Amino acid sequence: MAEPLYYEDLEVGSIRRFGHYQVTREEVLDFARKYDAQPFHLSDEGAAATHFGRLAASGWHTCSMTMAMMVEHAAVEPRSSLGALGIDELRWLKPVYPGDVLSCEMALLDKRRSRSKPGLGILNLRMTTFNQHGEAVLAMKPITLVRARES
Amino acid sequence: MAEPLYYEDLEVGSIRRFGHYQVTREEVLDFARKYDAQPFHLSDEGAAATHFGRLAASGWHTCSMTMAMMVEHAAVEPRSSLGALGIDELRWLKPVYPGDVLSCEMALLDKRRSRSKPGLGILNLRMTTFNQHGEAVLAMKPITLVRARES
Repeated sequence: MAEPLYYEDLEVGSIRRFGHYQVTREEVLDFARKYDAQPFHLSDEGAAATHFGRLAASGWHTCSMTMAMMVEHAAVEPRSSLGALGIDELRWLKPVYPGDVLSCEMALLDKRRSRSKPGLGILNLRMTTFNQHGEAVLAMKPITLVRARES
Repeated sequence: MAEPLYYEDLEVGSIRRFGHYQVTREEVLDFARKYDAQPFHLSDEGAAATHFGRLAASGWHTCSMTMAMMVEHAAVEPRSSLGALGIDELRWLKPVYPGDVLSCEMALLDKRRSRSKPGLGILNLRMTTFNQHGEAVLAMKPITLVRARES
C-alpha cells in the first residue's frame, strides 16, 4: 500500500472521481428490512403510489454505498483519516433504484488545522454521488479529520 | 394500526422520545465490513491508536440505527411520510460502542406547505440520538415530506 497522505499533502481544490457500485434488489431490500422499513423501500407495490414510482433504496443506504466507494478509493490513494465530525447540506436529489450503478466525486473545498489538537487537520469535502445516467443522486459536505505530518 | 397523522395534524414544538436499540459487536462489524471498512470500525486493535480507543460503530451505522428507531416509532404513531429531502447539520458527537443502548428524541421545529406540490408538507425536524448514559451521540436536522389531508 502507498504511504498515506497527510494534512500537508492535501491540495484545496483537488477533485477525484471514482467508484463503481452495482445496486442490487437483494441489497436494497436487506438494508431496508434492517434499518428503513418504509413501504417504498420494501416493494414496487409500496412505492407505486409515491414519487418513487417503484422500489427505491433507503437514503441511508445510498450514503452507506457512497462511504463504501470512499473506503475502496482510500486503498488506491490512502489518507491518514480519522473519521468524520459530521455532514452539512446532505441532499437526496434523485431516487436510487435496483439496477443502478453508482460512482462519485470528491472535492476538497477547504482545510484547516485543529485548534484544540495541533496534530490533526480538518477537511471540508464536497461529495457527489451519480447514477449511470450521470445524474447526481446524493450531494453532501462531509467534515473529516486527518492526521498532520507535523504538529 | 392507527389512522396516520397528516401535515395538518402535526404540531410545531412537539417532542417525542422513543427507541431502545441494542448495539451488538456482530452488527457493528457486519455494517463496517459492507460499508465502512476503516480500521477503527473493524477491531479494537485498529481503534486503539485513535480517539475512538476501541471498536466503534460507523457513523452511517448510527444514522441507520436511528432511522430504524424512527420507523419503529411510526408503527405506534404513524405519519403519512414520503421520505426525506435531506439532512442539515449532521454531527457525530460521541463514539457509539458495542454494548451501547441507543434511544432518540424527535422535535418538530417547523413546517410549511410545498409550493410546487400543494398536497405535500415539508417538516423540519431535530433528531438527537442518546446512549445509555444520556449522552448525545448524534444530532441532525432532517427535512422530510408528509402528505397533507387537504391540498
